[in-house]
Amino acid sequence: MSGDLLKGVPAVLNLGVGAFAEAIRSGGGTAVDVDWRPPAGGSREAGMELASLVSHPRIEAANRTAFERFLAAEPAVTGIGSAIDVLPEMGARTILHAGAPVAWEAMCGPMRGAVLGAILFEGWADDLDAARALVDSGGIAFDSCHHHGAAGPMSGVTSPSMPMWIVENPAGGNAAFSGLNEGLGKVLRFGANGPEVIERLRWMRDELAGVLARALDENGPIELKPLIAQALHMGDEAHNRNAAATSLLIKRLVPPALRCGADPESVARAFGFMAGNDHFFINLSMAACKAMLDAARGVPFSSMVTAMARNGVEFGIQTSATGDRWFTAPAPLVDGLYFSGFGKEDAARDIGDSAITETAGLGGFAMAAAPAIVRFVGGSASEAIAASREMRRITIGENPAFTLPVLDFAAAPAGIDARRVADSGVLPIVNTGIAHREAGIGQIGAGITAAPMECFVQAVRALHHEIARQAEVPATRSGGI
Amino acid sequence: MSGDLLKGVPAVLNLGVGAFAEAIRSGGGTAVDVDWRPPAGGSREAGMELASLVSHPRIEAANRTAFERFLAAEPAVTGIGSAIDVLPEMGARTILHAGAPVAWEAMCGPMRGAVLGAILFEGWADDLDAARALVDSGGIAFDSCHHHGAAGPMSGVTSPSMPMWIVENPAGGNAAFSGLNEGLGKVLRFGANGPEVIERLRWMRDELAGVLARALDENGPIELKPLIAQALHMGDEAHNRNAAATSLLIKRLVPPALRCGADPESVARAFGFMAGNDHFFINLSMAACKAMLDAARGVPFSSMVTAMARNGVEFGIQTSATGDRWFTAPAPLVDGLYFSGFGKEDAARDIGDSAITETAGLGGFAMAAAPAIVRFVGGSASEAIAASREMRRITIGENPAFTLPVLDFAAAPAGIDARRVADSGVLPIVNTGIAHREAGIGQIGAGITAAPMECFVQAVRALHHEIARQAEVPATRSGGI
Repeated sequence: MSGDLLKGVPAVLNLGVGAFAEAIRSGGGTAVDVDWRPPAGGSREAGMELASLVSHPRIEAANRTAFERFLAAEPAVTGIGSAIDVLPEMGARTILHAGAPVAWEAMCGPMRGAVLGAILFEGWADDLDAARALVDSGGIAFDSCHHHGAAGPMSGVTSPSMPMWIVENPAGGNAAFSGLNEGLGKVLRFGANGPEVIERLRWMRDELAGVLARALDENGPIELKPLIAQALHMGDEAHNRNAAATSLLIKRLVPPALRCGADPESVARAFGFMAGNDHFFINLSMAACKAMLDAARGVPFSSMVTAMARNGVEFGIQTSATGDRWFTAPAPLVDGLYFSGFGKEDAARDIGDSAITETAGLGGFAMAAAPAIVRFVGGSASEAIAASREMRRITIGENPAFTLPVLDFAAAPAGIDARRVADSGVLPIVNTGIAHREAGIGQIGAGITAAPMECFVQAVRALHHEIARQAEVPATRSGGI
Repeated sequence: MSGDLLKGVPAVLNLGVGAFAEAIRSGGGTAVDVDWRPPAGGSREAGMELASLVSHPRIEAANRTAFERFLAAEPAVTGIGSAIDVLPEMGARTILHAGAPVAWEAMCGPMRGAVLGAILFEGWADDLDAARALVDSGGIAFDSCHHHGAAGPMSGVTSPSMPMWIVENPAGGNAAFSGLNEGLGKVLRFGANGPEVIERLRWMRDELAGVLARALDENGPIELKPLIAQALHMGDEAHNRNAAATSLLIKRLVPPALRCGADPESVARAFGFMAGNDHFFINLSMAACKAMLDAARGVPFSSMVTAMARNGVEFGIQTSATGDRWFTAPAPLVDGLYFSGFGKEDAARDIGDSAITETAGLGGFAMAAAPAIVRFVGGSASEAIAASREMRRITIGENPAFTLPVLDFAAAPAGIDARRVADSGVLPIVNTGIAHREAGIGQIGAGITAAPMECFVQAVRALHHEIARQAEVPATRSGGI
């Protein structure tokens, strides 16, 4: 047989690395690529550990519990407060950032730029040199937004006096937070820190936040799931496209803002600013997603992913069972479209807490709702629809609160199961903006990326080890990881 | 051969009437239905006249001219004025209505109800009996909105002091008009005329119109094609669904309304009202479509349809070549979903000028943009996409200003060619609301209907006769129909 194979023209079914098929074809043979990837990223040991978890009854039951808590969440924006006042356990001279914890020395350019800008904004230093010296002297404590119930887009830099949306989930008794969106162009979250950036942040703190807080007081809480659901029927995917949700939010807030007694000129400036920024809603989308997912945290043995976030150096995920523990891998570069004058060589690695939207079944998972987004990131409407379908392979279920019109109102996939990612090789897709790798320049494009397999393999192995450990101790001592 | 046919089990390819295929099937045979309809509605004489016009060079050239003028239109809302002040040649004691002209005695229930309500609104009578007596005595002149550059939804009833959006098309030097939308429920356009209806209309005239006029003055003209294009990317089809366009309009008008010096409480009431009515934009959509289509009027020999409108009794169309002449047929009943407690037996016939949106390539023609609408009218997302594709068979071209995301941003079909309708048997589809057949009750459902073939056959025959007439006279005397 092997003699025949070597003599004839080979016709090969190729599983795995495409270059092999290319070699067959260049030798005159025919080859068909099959989109197959080995489980657990190809590691034999991890593959065996994964196999022990597939259909494990304890994990299945835990995932059902976590997923039900996620589905039951009813996040509503109830107010606005300063980070130092509303974030649990935030220290006075603390700056929070996106993704897993990262030391100042290791931070990427945009995050360093944003940190220095936040120091100027807080008045802790008068210029960038002094700000840098303050950090170098150890005068600033850093921590992850996610450790304080918060999520911040791109660098995610959050300092004590910044105003935060307060999103409460009465069904789970938890709350989540995110700052106010600055708009596009030169903005702190992309690492810009010039005078106009600082001035805008101060206006947002000193005027915008007050108008919004009074309007919200006058109006009462605004339920965010119905608003996001409506926006999904209007072409948003609630991550990279928020044009509809921003309009709907403005429509909801205008009447109470006009009734609440706020200075009319302040109201005019506030709504002029919001009306000029189609991304304004993204922070509320993130806080809503964070509130929904935090409700699913801490269920022992659940492999449900509760956060995906990038600090610009590493991509990190958390699972329900493992709480605040991060499973990280190098952050990928983003496959996307660049603004004129920029290219891949200018790009920072994937950054930001905004992948919390994909973790909650929005963004890339709800791409079928937003065919307009694929043009922004490069692609076709059919690819958008295929993406939402593909994500069903790695989720625990679907979220009936979020439906996709073009799929005849099928519910969007939600609740990533780390096991399914490791088993299928299908990576969660993430829609994202692209920052310049140097501080101070800002956004240079947008695109699509994927969470690295290594994060999910690590998470699955941690779960395997915990289950193995539990098997060795008396059952009465089990109960959490 | 015929003996064989009669002896065996028949296998039939059925063109045309489906009942024939049913008969074959009930007799144990197999039959495949082909969706074929005879040209010109099946009339042999009209079919021959139509054949003489297909690919006629003079009509082809005329249609190119008309279609270019349509595409070149740049409708912008520039202000608000009273009907009597802004509509060309509107008389003082005149009431305008939707569709082709119809006498009081022939009007359907909802239109009669709206007429009586308008008389009360204008203060020409103190109660419904007096209003009826006034009409019966000949004290009111009636005319079609379309004869005065206007388009009104449902009954379309427009009286002299009603505020009208002014939409100008500088590219064509023309203007179009439509009233302000009252919202859903008991409203004049559906024939309701109780005290709350009249009170709301007076508030709209005395406060709402003023706020909007001042905001527009402060802002300057708002281009409507880009706004509608954006709404199509947000799930609207700009006829039965205007949620996105309404939000976008509010977002545009809030900042100037807050700057323009209008009383803040009036501004609050105005925007509270608009924010509560997702259909608020429809009148602007209609005026924009009317402005685009009027630019294409009066091109000799053009078979492009410039208006489709229903007066509740007859469905009427106009073509470019034939100006204000109407080609009418009985208005169809609407195939739709009814609100709880109502059914087809309660429905008025198809009514309103809003089919001007389909005439301009929106509404049913852009249904692929709005999968959410098919749920409202009964149907699936794939049917919405199929509808937009099907309409390409009867249009002169496509409108690059209006693109459909789910079809990878293909341009929406636009510019109905009366010849193609008559030739293909494909009827223009129309999304519409359904009014109760009695006055004063209001909307009872929504659905999809189609323009009757007879209108297009008449229009084609008129064009044939004109071309035949031209052939008999010296060419120098030609120049218009």
